[in-house]
Amino acid sequence: MLSPTGDPFLLTPGPLTTAPETKQAMLHDWGSRDAGFIETNASVRRRILTIANAAQDHVCVPLQGSGTFAVEATLGTLVPRGGKSLILINGAYGQRMAKIHDYMARAYETLETPEDTPPDPQDVERIIKGDGDITHVIMVHCETTSGILNPVEEIAEICAAQGRAFIIDAMSAFGAIEIDAQKVHFDAVMASSNKCLEGVPGMGFAIIRKSALETCKGNAHSLSLDLYDQWQAMEANNQWRFTPPTHVIAAFSKALDLYDAEGGLAGRHARYAANHRILIDGMRDMGFKTLLSDNLQAPIIVTFHIPGDAKFVFQSFYDALKDKGFVIYPGKLTVADSFRIGCIGQLGETEMTGALEAVRQTLTEMGVTDCAPA
Amino acid sequence: MLSPTGDPFLLTPGPLTTAPETKQAMLHDWGSRDAGFIETNASVRRRILTIANAAQDHVCVPLQGSGTFAVEATLGTLVPRGGKSLILINGAYGQRMAKIHDYMARAYETLETPEDTPPDPQDVERIIKGDGDITHVIMVHCETTSGILNPVEEIAEICAAQGRAFIIDAMSAFGAIEIDAQKVHFDAVMASSNKCLEGVPGMGFAIIRKSALETCKGNAHSLSLDLYDQWQAMEANNQWRFTPPTHVIAAFSKALDLYDAEGGLAGRHARYAANHRILIDGMRDMGFKTLLSDNLQAPIIVTFHIPGDAKFVFQSFYDALKDKGFVIYPGKLTVADSFRIGCIGQLGETEMTGALEAVRQTLTEMGVTDCAPA
Repeated sequence: MLSPTGDPFLLTPGPLTTAPETKQAMLHDWGSRDAGFIETNASVRRRILTIANAAQDHVCVPLQGSGTFAVEATLGTLVPRGGKSLILINGAYGQRMAKIHDYMARAYETLETPEDTPPDPQDVERIIKGDGDITHVIMVHCETTSGILNPVEEIAEICAAQGRAFIIDAMSAFGAIEIDAQKVHFDAVMASSNKCLEGVPGMGFAIIRKSALETCKGNAHSLSLDLYDQWQAMEANNQWRFTPPTHVIAAFSKALDLYDAEGGLAGRHARYAANHRILIDGMRDMGFKTLLSDNLQAPIIVTFHIPGDAKFVFQSFYDALKDKGFVIYPGKLTVADSFRIGCIGQLGETEMTGALEAVRQTLTEMGVTDCAPA
Repeated sequence: MLSPTGDPFLLTPGPLTTAPETKQAMLHDWGSRDAGFIETNASVRRRILTIANAAQDHVCVPLQGSGTFAVEATLGTLVPRGGKSLILINGAYGQRMAKIHDYMARAYETLETPEDTPPDPQDVERIIKGDGDITHVIMVHCETTSGILNPVEEIAEICAAQGRAFIIDAMSAFGAIEIDAQKVHFDAVMASSNKCLEGVPGMGFAIIRKSALETCKGNAHSLSLDLYDQWQAMEANNQWRFTPPTHVIAAFSKALDLYDAEGGLAGRHARYAANHRILIDGMRDMGFKTLLSDNLQAPIIVTFHIPGDAKFVFQSFYDALKDKGFVIYPGKLTVADSFRIGCIGQLGETEMTGALEAVRQTLTEMGVTDCAPA
């Protein structure tokens, strides 16, 4: 089974399988300071705000590079040198934000829970009540390390009540799992083009509370990653300070057209939720066990325990699935002996069912009869 | 006149007009950790080194984002916190490297000359002989502010003789103007995908002396921009630390195929040199004057003085050229009343002659009869 452009389907947390139209949008060249491109850029910024219902109090600042660049830029721009962050960690992306603080030499502490466990809002409340120095609370929405959905609404309420800024790394969830700025009080949400909005990789963005960003001049540790400067320049003339990834933005604009045509967040969420249901039910039918219980599972990527059967060799499993047209996530988790299959991108019932059939065939080829964990 | 994909020709210093095949290479999706993409990435890194004849002592470290990201990353990684830079400035890109040092809080001084004047190598020698604290000398190869070609060979020799590291921002020249690592001693050369190598924008790269890079652990001010860390990770498994711009890299790989087919640096340089000759001769025929004398002019972008004739209005000139299929650089220089026309990208004699004809028609439409500067 192959995609319409003849590629294996990517069952990963991104880069993912994009629509042919999205890729075809890149078959042109644009001057980055010319009127046509400038209008595309302005439109993309407006539409991202709309997805989060954030046009009232927030601005959208896009940035070249991967999602991590947008995360680091947001942290570097918003957390002042005299500030202190509380980073809630239950996976690699939370860890990475702590590492970013190390590079920036900004003060922080962490509240770390296991990869299958969300932070307890009461712990967060206790910590920030006990430490008046904490200015920012930072959390990943969906940790793709495990696929866990973290409780942004509860943490947002606590931060608002305690007068602390709240920053959400929504990289792998934005556009498919609701964050409504009128319901969830946040200073920043970061995401990228190549996750649930189904663009190609090469840019990230932050949705930032305007009143917060206005105070951030001089905070950033890096010229390239200074979102205050990027915002000021872009407000002036809608141009990027430095060469934008023109083709990536054109593809993103087309991807947003397709997103709207699918019914926006509700439509995208519904398709991904159906995908993850098909995936989990089908894998459980074969005897696989998920790392997370269903109430913690985001419809983005699912972690399965490695079967105890010695005939199951992950690399062979991965390669055989790829030969059948399905690329799953090649990495393994550190804490649990497990593997991951994503369900975002241009995938629907046909592709998810096809992936399950490929898994079934592969298990037969490998001679694996028991998929229960060790 | 339009490009094969129906777009105006971009007579700018990039993003530029790319070949249809380069854009068509983006009509697929790739898993960023999958074997096929990993081999493409490894091949691109090898081929960049070959262009600079640098495979012996240097490594190629690519980075997500615009060229400025690669410049900042290289400076942040190579110049240690206790180091001191001498930045040679004769345009906006030299200025930008000083600004980057301000952000990073690294010591530097500058040697600034006017935009139409290269630094005097004797001045450079005098300054570094007089200041033993200077560890790095940094210069732009072709300053696209004016189009001037700076004397990298002479400065490299002085740096080598005085035992200082030499870093060259070769953004707009790399691939068309020779830098041979066996002839020019440098610690780093930075460039990007979307200049003379004719890829699409979204990634930069640095060619770094391996023995220098090996000493740079812990230097960088930013996780995203840490080229030591990027290099270490990529050496281990040829994967990018953070999501790479897969489509941009695929396009770049195809652009390198076309580069080789054109005869590599010699072929690319010959075409651009012919382009800039046609452009300068044709514009001079109409009475325009170049900012630079021919001996200082790189075959990349040419700066012309604005005609003194009051009927010449730059925005009308720009718009009329665009209507005829030619997008010139929209910005004006700060010091001289001038405008710029680039001659790099998928442009040859037909397109350059077409651009000149469009200029001629536009001048007639505007009623401009005298193109001499005021």
